[in-house]
Amino acid sequence: MTVKKANQKELFKAPYQLFLGCDDNELAIKTSRGIAQWNPDVCVAEFAGEKSTLSVGLPKNSIKEAAKIGAKTFVIGLANAGGIVDPDWEPYILEAIENGMDIASGLHRRLDEIPSIKEAAIKHQVTLHDVRHGYTDLKTGTGIKRSGKRILSVGTDCSVGKMFTTLSITQEMKKAGFDAEFKATGQTGVMITGSGICIDAVVADFISGGIEELSPDNGDDHWDIIEGQGSLYNPAFAGVSLGLLHGAQADIVIMCHEADRPYIKGMPHMDMPEMNDCIKLNLKHASLTNPKARLGGISLNCRNVSVKEGAKQRNALQEKFGVPCFDPMITGSGLFVETLK
Amino acid sequence: MTVKKANQKELFKAPYQLFLGCDDNELAIKTSRGIAQWNPDVCVAEFAGEKSTLSVGLPKNSIKEAAKIGAKTFVIGLANAGGIVDPDWEPYILEAIENGMDIASGLHRRLDEIPSIKEAAIKHQVTLHDVRHGYTDLKTGTGIKRSGKRILSVGTDCSVGKMFTTLSITQEMKKAGFDAEFKATGQTGVMITGSGICIDAVVADFISGGIEELSPDNGDDHWDIIEGQGSLYNPAFAGVSLGLLHGAQADIVIMCHEADRPYIKGMPHMDMPEMNDCIKLNLKHASLTNPKARLGGISLNCRNVSVKEGAKQRNALQEKFGVPCFDPMITGSGLFVETLK
Repeated sequence: MTVKKANQKELFKAPYQLFLGCDDNELAIKTSRGIAQWNPDVCVAEFAGEKSTLSVGLPKNSIKEAAKIGAKTFVIGLANAGGIVDPDWEPYILEAIENGMDIASGLHRRLDEIPSIKEAAIKHQVTLHDVRHGYTDLKTGTGIKRSGKRILSVGTDCSVGKMFTTLSITQEMKKAGFDAEFKATGQTGVMITGSGICIDAVVADFISGGIEELSPDNGDDHWDIIEGQGSLYNPAFAGVSLGLLHGAQADIVIMCHEADRPYIKGMPHMDMPEMNDCIKLNLKHASLTNPKARLGGISLNCRNVSVKEGAKQRNALQEKFGVPCFDPMITGSGLFVETLK
Repeated sequence: MTVKKANQKELFKAPYQLFLGCDDNELAIKTSRGIAQWNPDVCVAEFAGEKSTLSVGLPKNSIKEAAKIGAKTFVIGLANAGGIVDPDWEPYILEAIENGMDIASGLHRRLDEIPSIKEAAIKHQVTLHDVRHGYTDLKTGTGIKRSGKRILSVGTDCSVGKMFTTLSITQEMKKAGFDAEFKATGQTGVMITGSGICIDAVVADFISGGIEELSPDNGDDHWDIIEGQGSLYNPAFAGVSLGLLHGAQADIVIMCHEADRPYIKGMPHMDMPEMNDCIKLNLKHASLTNPKARLGGISLNCRNVSVKEGAKQRNALQEKFGVPCFDPMITGSGLFVETLK
């Protein structure tokens, strides 16, 4: 129902009412929690079905009330297995449409494939935003050097904290007075910031071209902080990671890793890469479109190890690679941002 | 109008009538020429508009006659800038539909987006095959080792002869008694063989998974000869190349290069990679899903150099890398196939 442009600043109309679903499934509301944490200014209300006791700490308005106080988009800040639209959600989505709100979704299933929702959207002239669909007008990459500065998070694997790292760096850089902007490349990041491009959802020919469009020419002192995806060592998603690396033309690469991860996510037959190897390979590929690309820091996700063990591992990595090693959840990313001054 | 499965053996119903368009544009009929050369058994007729004098050497039947002698698919074996369906072609496509033929196209523009063609296809119950569209049921890659043997062509750049090399190897291996099968990954290859998957047209998340499906478990003595795409050094398409490399789990990699190519295709700002570097990087990535991957040969496209210079360069590469170096157009690929015996 809408074509999203990668470099569009406001993908969804603010402010939002966040929809938390109908069950007590804490994991499923990761996206809503992310929006409330990282983009609180655009949130005016939350809403959950009767049986749910979940909250992300926003005012609990009815859908009608939220529309009255100005909510423009009803955000389905939810993830579930299969990415389907739960039939229990449908009446609430329809109510939001009837109250004039646009709907935003990062689910795999398209909203406009559900006849009742499509019909209501046409009748009430609201927009359905399916952030995992509709990237139809991208161009192929060119590799031509762009102005401005760029930081990209890369990883030893998927789900090691690349999004959290780049959001944290952006926040700390802004605090320190830098002209910094987060660039989302995954559905959660896009939903959190209300802009960006789900790079794993574009046609394969347009991976690097999509990132070139997401992070265009900019002022010499402007920094784009680009969310990475996957890993060169993940046999499912490495193609996305490499296209992203080439499109980003990063000046600085931040290597993200989860301490003590035993093997590639969901693949006991695939070893985790050696950190030194992983850094070298990422820098080699990054140099194709930015010969000056360098390692700027290591973000170590320490959720699986003790406080003491985490500190020990961060110190060891810092010593070995000569760059700041931080856990954005524990230490923040100030240690890295300091080095940019 | 149809969902193509990657490992489907017969994508289009044979035999074909090849459509050569309405103009004398030799370059545009590359696909038809490829089908007539590599898959002659499925071709019964050709057809061109009045103004065209082109031929691929097949009987020149009218569309009605071709249908009468059994043609089941009218193949638009044409490429043009923008991948559009030329309005001049429309009456002939409609005539083929009215005579009960399916239509096959490798163009960017979907046949079923043209109302007259869609309407006629529904009315006459024929299938529209858009090989660049419709890959909706792929899975993400797993990296789990599959049985059977695989050869993959990789390249220093796009359009250096990867498809031709793999077609030639498949043909020579079959002649030598091997159980060999060509696996197409681009629109020309898919149109030529009537099966395969246009890997640059799938959603980015499914590149390696698509190739895993294209080349599934097989007998220990079976060889899949997989057509490569792009290059790890082409900043537009490297993501596709890497996903393909991981999905293929190649036992043997054939490096393809065009002698004296001055820079990456269409990108004067991008240097061609050094051959040794390119081989090492491809083998490094290939080893993620097949630790035994090795370089088996170098295919040197010598169309831009003299016969003498080509022979000299092939000898030099053969000497340097210790594997056969051949030009499938000039020497054939027997030199490489010999080494498999």
